[in-house]
Amino acid sequence: MADKKLVEAITSMEDDFAQWYTDVVKKADLMGYTSVKGCMVFKPAGYAIWELIQKQMDEMFKETGVQNVYLPMFIPESLLEKEKDHVEGFAPEVAWVTQGGLQPLQERMCVRPTSETLFCDFYKDDIQSYRDLPKVYNQWCSVVRWEKETRPFLRSREFLWQEGHTAHATAEEAEERTIQMLNLYAEFCEKVLAIPVIKGRKTDKEKFAGAEATYTIEALMHDGKALQSGTSHNFGDGFAKAFGIQYTDKDNKLKYVHQTSWGSTTRLIGAVIMVHGDNSGLVLPPRIAPVQVMIVPIQQKKEGVLDKAFELRDRLSKTEGLYGNLRVKVDDSEKSPGWKFSECEMRGIPVRVEIGPKDIENSQCVLVRRDNGEKITVSTDEIEEKVSELLGKMQKDMLERARAHRDEHTYTAKNMDEFEKLFSEKSGFVKAMWCGCQECEDRIKEKLAVTSRCLPFEQETISDKCVCCSKPAKSLVYWGRAY
Amino acid sequence: MADKKLVEAITSMEDDFAQWYTDVVKKADLMGYTSVKGCMVFKPAGYAIWELIQKQMDEMFKETGVQNVYLPMFIPESLLEKEKDHVEGFAPEVAWVTQGGLQPLQERMCVRPTSETLFCDFYKDDIQSYRDLPKVYNQWCSVVRWEKETRPFLRSREFLWQEGHTAHATAEEAEERTIQMLNLYAEFCEKVLAIPVIKGRKTDKEKFAGAEATYTIEALMHDGKALQSGTSHNFGDGFAKAFGIQYTDKDNKLKYVHQTSWGSTTRLIGAVIMVHGDNSGLVLPPRIAPVQVMIVPIQQKKEGVLDKAFELRDRLSKTEGLYGNLRVKVDDSEKSPGWKFSECEMRGIPVRVEIGPKDIENSQCVLVRRDNGEKITVSTDEIEEKVSELLGKMQKDMLERARAHRDEHTYTAKNMDEFEKLFSEKSGFVKAMWCGCQECEDRIKEKLAVTSRCLPFEQETISDKCVCCSKPAKSLVYWGRAY
Repeated sequence: MADKKLVEAITSMEDDFAQWYTDVVKKADLMGYTSVKGCMVFKPAGYAIWELIQKQMDEMFKETGVQNVYLPMFIPESLLEKEKDHVEGFAPEVAWVTQGGLQPLQERMCVRPTSETLFCDFYKDDIQSYRDLPKVYNQWCSVVRWEKETRPFLRSREFLWQEGHTAHATAEEAEERTIQMLNLYAEFCEKVLAIPVIKGRKTDKEKFAGAEATYTIEALMHDGKALQSGTSHNFGDGFAKAFGIQYTDKDNKLKYVHQTSWGSTTRLIGAVIMVHGDNSGLVLPPRIAPVQVMIVPIQQKKEGVLDKAFELRDRLSKTEGLYGNLRVKVDDSEKSPGWKFSECEMRGIPVRVEIGPKDIENSQCVLVRRDNGEKITVSTDEIEEKVSELLGKMQKDMLERARAHRDEHTYTAKNMDEFEKLFSEKSGFVKAMWCGCQECEDRIKEKLAVTSRCLPFEQETISDKCVCCSKPAKSLVYWGRAY
Repeated sequence: MADKKLVEAITSMEDDFAQWYTDVVKKADLMGYTSVKGCMVFKPAGYAIWELIQKQMDEMFKETGVQNVYLPMFIPESLLEKEKDHVEGFAPEVAWVTQGGLQPLQERMCVRPTSETLFCDFYKDDIQSYRDLPKVYNQWCSVVRWEKETRPFLRSREFLWQEGHTAHATAEEAEERTIQMLNLYAEFCEKVLAIPVIKGRKTDKEKFAGAEATYTIEALMHDGKALQSGTSHNFGDGFAKAFGIQYTDKDNKLKYVHQTSWGSTTRLIGAVIMVHGDNSGLVLPPRIAPVQVMIVPIQQKKEGVLDKAFELRDRLSKTEGLYGNLRVKVDDSEKSPGWKFSECEMRGIPVRVEIGPKDIENSQCVLVRRDNGEKITVSTDEIEEKVSELLGKMQKDMLERARAHRDEHTYTAKNMDEFEKLFSEKSGFVKAMWCGCQECEDRIKEKLAVTSRCLPFEQETISDKCVCCSKPAKSLVYWGRAY
């Protein structure tokens, strides 16, 4: 039973979802704690997932004309203070540098919590004429927010992300880019992470500090909690006015630019864990699995077994997969096959290939799917096609399974009684009508301990009345408990 | 003459090399200044070069078994202080965070100037047994050093780099990895950046704070100054003892690990500018040129010209180049061809393709090499082969040209008179024998304002005596003025 140790070491998700999450992060070797409070180490298995996310998202960005840049990590206090709402939102949670070398600084600087102010300061000089527009810049970096409670991938004092910052000649163009990037995030989540999302707009209460409008994609985790998975903000010309970012238009008039920003973070890895994982550990969608296929030789000391395993690896490694060539390894360690199976499962490796002396005799091998445990015996002659096909199928099935789970855990409420009953008995999204007043939003938050997730782009009319005050409803809102 | 503006705006390198450098950085739009003192913006053209450097170096790393990770950017003061030499070297030049959110920190933290201490703190818990070794980790990130004088790419308060940190069971294995990575850097510089380097060991005076031995690659810039372009350090078990990083060996005994670290930075871009650039601007080796081919249509308003230009772009973009497919653009802006030519030159684009109505009639086009201005008329039918060939040839020629320049500017000195004369009249590397005493090294530095660059792996015997004290010589040393 030693083979089971790895799995037995994790809490079941039905018993304690939060502990299950922490166990998976630890046992799949994704992240480690450090002696820097609230900051974590991305270990190789965790960072390799981030690299695959980065590469694929960056390619999608570049197809839409995004250019990467890198701006400083420090923001002088006077710069942070230029836009009133923005500084109010961020000042309470930044880290301050007060000394450089052996000298105290004349002006303290914070470590960027986000870089709107730096980009504005840069654009103010870099943009002169309509010919300089649009600017569609992005940077991959880390940011710091002095959080009190931290959880691996979901919330930490330093985290990795990308932040796009654009400047446009017109309000229309800025709005178009804001929505374009939200759609890109949604497509990325579905296509690459196999996570379906709800696209919508945040209420004024929940929008980004300094934004005119914030759009969001919201995903539902296995435990029924929501996770904000990417946001896109339209700033209008608010920042441009605060920073004086003007351009001379074709008509020779001086005008303010219109700006946007959009970001997604390493919490996407947290979403992958909580949407796809199970009681055997991590389950990775093939597109972001650093190892997509693990070949486990059975009775590996028998002649020809390891040779065959490496031959299959070499052939598979030359086969085109969902993203680049297939990523394949052989586990030729001294561990027992059972232990190796558990380990593949814990680490979320999409396909395990079992090959032993008998299989070799019959020119076959066994493929085991991580997502549903299905075993398929295939001829080794056609292993390339079979594995490719299987990975493609898994990528699709995982999205459909997650979508079905989300739909099954999406409810509707017409009044406060239904609303309260749902959140006391169920866990998931609740759709309800809203009058548009912040009083109702606050009251719901206070009474049910849930927040408005978004006003979905796909509006429905469940009833004519606000779920809270019964006054005429303006919009449908998704509500939920959130990470 | 309006076409010449762009070029006239830069100082000639013979008049003022430092100003020429600054002009190229600015006019080629690589970097910008910010209101954060000593910190700069990587603009799209500059960052795209860094991305190509990162990708190609990272692939070389991974081929040698390197795994990427990410550690926090903050180092608690007590952690920085654990290794005596290390803290002495770095404490005077770090930025200190003293407040997090609204509270002063109980212990101040510096922003990493380098991450040896963090990796040690991590390895201390992560390494238990010989089975956990070796650890061969690397991270791509930014670091901060509170420099007083800053120059784009060469020295700034925040800069981008990669830092590798490894832990091994034996001293031999650590030394092997140290040399392996130095060789990798040298190969990278020659193959990718077309920059020849001298490989060698630093003197004790010049080695890294806390290292047993520091190895370096030294390149010679066009003005005859040296640039340290990558370093690899062997720490022995010094850090392991300071941090208590021990493992249980196969013989069941507790032993200290042996560690290395190695780094290279965005100053490599500075090296590219100063090795290959000329009075028309930047000259990029094809392998790191974000745009390798710029197609400039002549009389672009005439029917068929732009169509042909885009057709050629599409065909070239599908052609395999030195690294991935060819990176090709068409300049279809309203500017004059002459202006476009100047701009291509300023930005260092390796090949310019000129195509106009007459060329189209004759099924030909003109290829212009950026490195030597050579023009070649080729049939458009075979443009793919011709451009590919040309880029390959340029990559080689640029390395050979840089090597010849370096060799022509490498001198030998047998005594102090020769030594002084050389550095007063010439600019370059001077090879001279050394007794091994720091007194001589100090004296030479004081008298000639030059530093020891390295004890080259390829030793020669120029004379039996130290160039400074005339006592018996132990090694040949490369000396130079350095950035």
